[in-house]
Amino acid sequence: MPTAKSAEISVFKRRESEARSYCRGFDTVFTRASGSEMTDINGRDYIDFLAGCSSLNYGHNDADMKAALIEHISADGMAHALDLHTDTKAAFLDAFETHILEPRDMDHRVMFTGPTGANAVEAAMKIARKVTGRTNIIAFTNGFHGVTAGALAATGNNYHRGAAGVTLNGVTRMPYDNFIGSEIDTADYLDAMLTDRSSGVDAPAAIILETVQGEGGLNAASPEWLRQVADVAKRHGALLIVDDIQAGCGRCGTFFSFEDMGIVPDIVTLAKSISGFGLPMALMLVRPQHDVFGPAEHNGTFRGNTHAFVTAKVTIEKFWSDDTFQEGLGKKAEILTEALRNLVDLVPGARLKGRGLMLGVDVGCGHLAGEICARAFRKGLIIETSGSEGQVVKVLAPLTTPEQQFRKGLNILLDAARDVTQSTRFAAE
Amino acid sequence: MPTAKSAEISVFKRRESEARSYCRGFDTVFTRASGSEMTDINGRDYIDFLAGCSSLNYGHNDADMKAALIEHISADGMAHALDLHTDTKAAFLDAFETHILEPRDMDHRVMFTGPTGANAVEAAMKIARKVTGRTNIIAFTNGFHGVTAGALAATGNNYHRGAAGVTLNGVTRMPYDNFIGSEIDTADYLDAMLTDRSSGVDAPAAIILETVQGEGGLNAASPEWLRQVADVAKRHGALLIVDDIQAGCGRCGTFFSFEDMGIVPDIVTLAKSISGFGLPMALMLVRPQHDVFGPAEHNGTFRGNTHAFVTAKVTIEKFWSDDTFQEGLGKKAEILTEALRNLVDLVPGARLKGRGLMLGVDVGCGHLAGEICARAFRKGLIIETSGSEGQVVKVLAPLTTPEQQFRKGLNILLDAARDVTQSTRFAAE
Amino acid sequence: MPTAKSAEISVFKRRESEARSYCRGFDTVFTRASGSEMTDINGRDYIDFLAGCSSLNYGHNDADMKAALIEHISADGMAHALDLHTDTKAAFLDAFETHILEPRDMDHRVMFTGPTGANAVEAAMKIARKVTGRTNIIAFTNGFHGVTAGALAATGNNYHRGAAGVTLNGVTRMPYDNFIGSEIDTADYLDAMLTDRSSGVDAPAAIILETVQGEGGLNAASPEWLRQVADVAKRHGALLIVDDIQAGCGRCGTFFSFEDMGIVPDIVTLAKSISGFGLPMALMLVRPQHDVFGPAEHNGTFRGNTHAFVTAKVTIEKFWSDDTFQEGLGKKAEILTEALRNLVDLVPGARLKGRGLMLGVDVGCGHLAGEICARAFRKGLIIETSGSEGQVVKVLAPLTTPEQQFRKGLNILLDAARDVTQSTRFAAE
Amino acid sequence: MPTAKSAEISVFKRRESEARSYCRGFDTVFTRASGSEMTDINGRDYIDFLAGCSSLNYGHNDADMKAALIEHISADGMAHALDLHTDTKAAFLDAFETHILEPRDMDHRVMFTGPTGANAVEAAMKIARKVTGRTNIIAFTNGFHGVTAGALAATGNNYHRGAAGVTLNGVTRMPYDNFIGSEIDTADYLDAMLTDRSSGVDAPAAIILETVQGEGGLNAASPEWLRQVADVAKRHGALLIVDDIQAGCGRCGTFFSFEDMGIVPDIVTLAKSISGFGLPMALMLVRPQHDVFGPAEHNGTFRGNTHAFVTAKVTIEKFWSDDTFQEGLGKKAEILTEALRNLVDLVPGARLKGRGLMLGVDVGCGHLAGEICARAFRKGLIIETSGSEGQVVKVLAPLTTPEQQFRKGLNILLDAARDVTQSTRFAAE
Repeated sequence: MPTAKSAEISVFKRRESEARSYCRGFDTVFTRASGSEMTDINGRDYIDFLAGCSSLNYGHNDADMKAALIEHISADGMAHALDLHTDTKAAFLDAFETHILEPRDMDHRVMFTGPTGANAVEAAMKIARKVTGRTNIIAFTNGFHGVTAGALAATGNNYHRGAAGVTLNGVTRMPYDNFIGSEIDTADYLDAMLTDRSSGVDAPAAIILETVQGEGGLNAASPEWLRQVADVAKRHGALLIVDDIQAGCGRCGTFFSFEDMGIVPDIVTLAKSISGFGLPMALMLVRPQHDVFGPAEHNGTFRGNTHAFVTAKVTIEKFWSDDTFQEGLGKKAEILTEALRNLVDLVPGARLKGRGLMLGVDVGCGHLAGEICARAFRKGLIIETSGSEGQVVKVLAPLTTPEQQFRKGLNILLDAARDVTQSTRFAAE
Repeated sequence: MPTAKSAEISVFKRRESEARSYCRGFDTVFTRASGSEMTDINGRDYIDFLAGCSSLNYGHNDADMKAALIEHISADGMAHALDLHTDTKAAFLDAFETHILEPRDMDHRVMFTGPTGANAVEAAMKIARKVTGRTNIIAFTNGFHGVTAGALAATGNNYHRGAAGVTLNGVTRMPYDNFIGSEIDTADYLDAMLTDRSSGVDAPAAIILETVQGEGGLNAASPEWLRQVADVAKRHGALLIVDDIQAGCGRCGTFFSFEDMGIVPDIVTLAKSISGFGLPMALMLVRPQHDVFGPAEHNGTFRGNTHAFVTAKVTIEKFWSDDTFQEGLGKKAEILTEALRNLVDLVPGARLKGRGLMLGVDVGCGHLAGEICARAFRKGLIIETSGSEGQVVKVLAPLTTPEQQFRKGLNILLDAARDVTQSTRFAAE
Repeated sequence: MPTAKSAEISVFKRRESEARSYCRGFDTVFTRASGSEMTDINGRDYIDFLAGCSSLNYGHNDADMKAALIEHISADGMAHALDLHTDTKAAFLDAFETHILEPRDMDHRVMFTGPTGANAVEAAMKIARKVTGRTNIIAFTNGFHGVTAGALAATGNNYHRGAAGVTLNGVTRMPYDNFIGSEIDTADYLDAMLTDRSSGVDAPAAIILETVQGEGGLNAASPEWLRQVADVAKRHGALLIVDDIQAGCGRCGTFFSFEDMGIVPDIVTLAKSISGFGLPMALMLVRPQHDVFGPAEHNGTFRGNTHAFVTAKVTIEKFWSDDTFQEGLGKKAEILTEALRNLVDLVPGARLKGRGLMLGVDVGCGHLAGEICARAFRKGLIIETSGSEGQVVKVLAPLTTPEQQFRKGLNILLDAARDVTQSTRFAAE
Repeated sequence: MPTAKSAEISVFKRRESEARSYCRGFDTVFTRASGSEMTDINGRDYIDFLAGCSSLNYGHNDADMKAALIEHISADGMAHALDLHTDTKAAFLDAFETHILEPRDMDHRVMFTGPTGANAVEAAMKIARKVTGRTNIIAFTNGFHGVTAGALAATGNNYHRGAAGVTLNGVTRMPYDNFIGSEIDTADYLDAMLTDRSSGVDAPAAIILETVQGEGGLNAASPEWLRQVADVAKRHGALLIVDDIQAGCGRCGTFFSFEDMGIVPDIVTLAKSISGFGLPMALMLVRPQHDVFGPAEHNGTFRGNTHAFVTAKVTIEKFWSDDTFQEGLGKKAEILTEALRNLVDLVPGARLKGRGLMLGVDVGCGHLAGEICARAFRKGLIIETSGSEGQVVKVLAPLTTPEQQFRKGLNILLDAARDVTQSTRFAAE
């Protein structure tokens, strides 16, 4: 067990708001991190299978990003530039255009929003409403899009919704793929609701979805469902917004999570791993014909984080300028799948969830999942749960984790699960 | 005139959203900056009187912050840690407690929200609603609190409000100090509206205000008015939220803008210059008895920006651990006031606006103010307007600007104003 | 074809708002009515199968009600008494308690709301929110509950919703029984949405439904579905509101439409035929433990229409003090069903819809249904359509229509349908 | 003290909702009424100075209306006709056009809404939003416009607002004439709020007001203020809605309350006394260019109450076809004013409030006003309070009250006030 220095812990208790959360589960003080490893104040190392909730897809303190960032800072490169033109932003845009957008035939424009995912989502919802002149936005069960009032209306989690303090409006909730069992086609249901002129569902400005619901429990939509929903959106005059904040940036095995799905979203939101280094950055991609905001109509002070542009450019050139990195993801996904199948076998009724390297196991019970993660932490692995009841043990390892370390982390997870399920079994006997 | 490299400009036109704005007025590409000076791609230097809209109160790339940040990065210090405990966060909290909160007898807790001012405002509004069980929040004419849906309801500007796309609710608008002329006491009016049980203004959860309205045109509330409003809040069971995002961090001559005003806000929002280096960071201060969010009830991925903690700690220790810096601000404010009085003399009907180093001149017309800023830019000064019609030329110089450079910038501004008013006069003859 | 006096028609064109509607389809001027027959200004008689949209379940100008009302007026009985106690109201309440509530073991209290169905619905929604402290109300596809802003949020029809002019909020839409085909249990789906804590559907104050959706196209819920929904409401702490405005007062064969369904609503709304004479009257029944409004908390000038109490009392004593009337309804329903089966046979793909004497035929196309009604009108029958596309020919004959007249009306309808379908067939050949 | 029959009272306690209110203050059972007199079940007579809250401006059971209504009913005239054309409606419209609209040069169309004032207000707000494409509606402190969700947003009273259960939106509250003392011009303030583009008050669809606020405490706007507000509306592209539900139909000395004020509202709402007989009826007048609802876009079952048309036509022909009646109102207002001045003299600090025959006395304290009304009731006078604290004793006598009876009622009121103030004085000594 870690024995963190009491002085540090004490100031958190004294002065940090009760809203703090992850630090409660991982109750130590971290001091440095590199690659897929974090070190605490007692010198203890942890393998990181949380990766800043998918904000550190390329691991901690990547050497090339570090070098570029230090060079930028040393040379008095812009640290903050509002939304002025900078050479750094130009370089990022060039790289993003060349290696991400053009190869995927995407003509989207890039809007740098405030550097939180929620801010990008708010911008996306607003621009869709402006484009269509409609108010209603379709969001799905178990979707998570942020907790500012506009985004929160689209977020499913009732713990977060309950904190709104004001009637959330402008969003209609629909069942995600498989929400009501596999025999019911929820895309057909959505279509029926939008087609019936007395359904009570107003014509939507947009349909917003995650292709894999990260916070909602690693629910992965099928390609067929996504294509159907994209088609429903088109037929009903709604824009399709893919919130790729957690599932994007390689997490699902391709840069965008929707690449192999046969859909072209009108709007895409990115945040978390877009800077590559864990720095705050968010953006919205929007097709040129929908790029209708006036200057600063949606604004914010930090809508360009120059340091993040520096590291983001490195990630694109290092990982996405050829297929090497992406191909490696496939192999890693196999290793992960295999390991999690073993975990599934340990827990009666457990189910594998997710897609690509956004995979986890629904153990059927939030308490059990929490126990497994707590046990794993004591064994040196940082891993978290997701889902409406926290019932899914979720692996969000850095995509760059070396195979050996990856297997080591997975073994810790399996050990932890074994410990917990065995002790449970004893308790039940 | 700057002749920026066309390649850079071209990628912005091709790929950056039409929402970009400052770059339209300052149409060049910036490459580096130091202190109060920015340099563009053509090697041209500009004095910066915009300071990232008050996000760079300590100037660009402060040497001590640079050193600390480079050291942190070099040592593989955490770059991203969600809201986990880190030694860096502990060090910031310690410094903030020791040098900011304790000397001012503030028992507030610190909540790190998503790193945008709007996010801190949303958190503040939500927590006030949770504390009181009420929905309504009083906001003021010309207030600016951000553009996400919750914060936007509190923002006065109708250009931004018009982009909401959904009925904004939960906020009642009241006239700010002096909004209807000096003879009418708008705090009395507010009190009357809250006292009359048929006024149609629901009992408020909070009253949110800026002591000096930055975007709204440098309207500075009098201490008496602020005390009255604080008293109204208390008597009507509402929390007082001071949005100190633009006016705080020394901008008005003290760390918080409200220090000499005789009020103790229940909640304070800070962002912009809190990191000191221009890095995205925002926080909310809340009195312990109102610190009622559950864990992660208001959450977000970037609710701790470790790099920002590093630089923020430097700012506190360097500028706020004794009175030297603050005393210097007083002198600077005198220089500024004097210079702007000269500007006032150039324009019939012009008025000095603001307080401390958040000062400007209302020239009565957005077109004229815009012309002055454009002319100043051509002469090597970056300066912007504010106010509902953009009618206020607003000086937001770094607080650290050396006196000589400060005077130089002010002279450019006066020259620009002289040029513009003379040419206007000729045109009129 | 009727040739109404031009003077009368002219004043409508000159001075009545474009919002007028039924008069467009039945373009004559009516002067008197008795039983199930209406007479126009040219002396032409029409059989009435519209019955004031189920507001005239006992026909026009029932002799006993007439006598009672004239006696009341002649004796200077109260015409208007706000919500003061009157002997007339006491007599109505006594009769309603004795013949309606007590025999059905209903302990509900009676709240006289403003005399429109929408007003009763608004009161029901408000009281459910007050009882539970929750905001969200579940309403169903194709539900119709009125067009004032609160009720309109619960109404499905998008023509009416589109006129709101403000974001409608506080209501979540769910699929009614059979909305997505008979194989999917929409009550299970509702249960799943309320059970999943990340579904995005907030815990509901109430579930509001019609057992047969009159405006929505005569969709009749099955008893099993109603029981399931009632159970869902109970398990999730929501009140069950049955909007019996159109389906109640005998329309479905019993006084309340839900009598044989095995459910006890917490709240029931009644209007339309409750006065029996077509006079404006509405009320809300609420179980005593939920009778939580303070005095006048929901108020209105006409929340007691004394004339309506006079006639309402007659209807209860005349029709509902023993089983005779109700038994007759069963026979009439058989006649109606048989006739409409013949209509179904005339139109390929047509379907019988509804329950009791709230029956109709979905002919699959609003244009065809409209043609049938227009042809019927020319033949002396007043009948209307319903459904999201106006695709259902809806029979709402007075429940008191003598058998011969009822058959005569049905024959006109069949003739009209035959004419239209034949001419269509010719046209198609 | 009245000793009502216990049987009647008992059924109210057993079965009528707690929302009942007037009956609590006037705790007897009324059985008949004629002119300005009401009689209870014990045979006791009361002079009626409440007049159904201005719904009985022509008294109870006017002989001519009685005769016309009985004749109509006897002849099987339509009792209910949805919004079909009837000879009765045509006759009403003709009379209304000839004697009300044309002489006042009003080209307005008549929309028969659901028969409650709130319904007419909801229709007015919706149509104004449709005409302008804007959402926001300006309403005033102490305004009362009904309690359905749309109208309630415009109503000031916080007891009623508190029952909404949902965030009320789409309305901005402004101070009524004299709300903040006579030295401040609240119309100028309104203008400033609409002119400043950062005031946070969205461009309004409409401004809704009562020229005398009945429920709000008999606040009478000055003609100058009304003209200014009408001008503000025009300049800012908003429709002017005069809610004349309580102040109209002769109450202020002319048919419409705004006749001598120099304004032409775009929309007028009428209810209460429009039928003349106390029967539920409401309508909205709208200028032809704003008559933009589609057929039934705002609908409702009882949007024509044929019985009310019968009596309404009598009122117009009897009272408004020449100037006799109106001239008499002037004299009555003098009598009333004089009597209330005496009442004012009885209570230190009391003030005369209102206009025309909508007059009362603000006695400064709800308890005192309530005591006076209770004492008056015991002496045989029915009279109520209004105002945010119930501090105004409000005289709403039938306009047709014979002079002698009028003086008798006023004397009872003065006696009651004298009793109460004396006993208070004794108590204080």
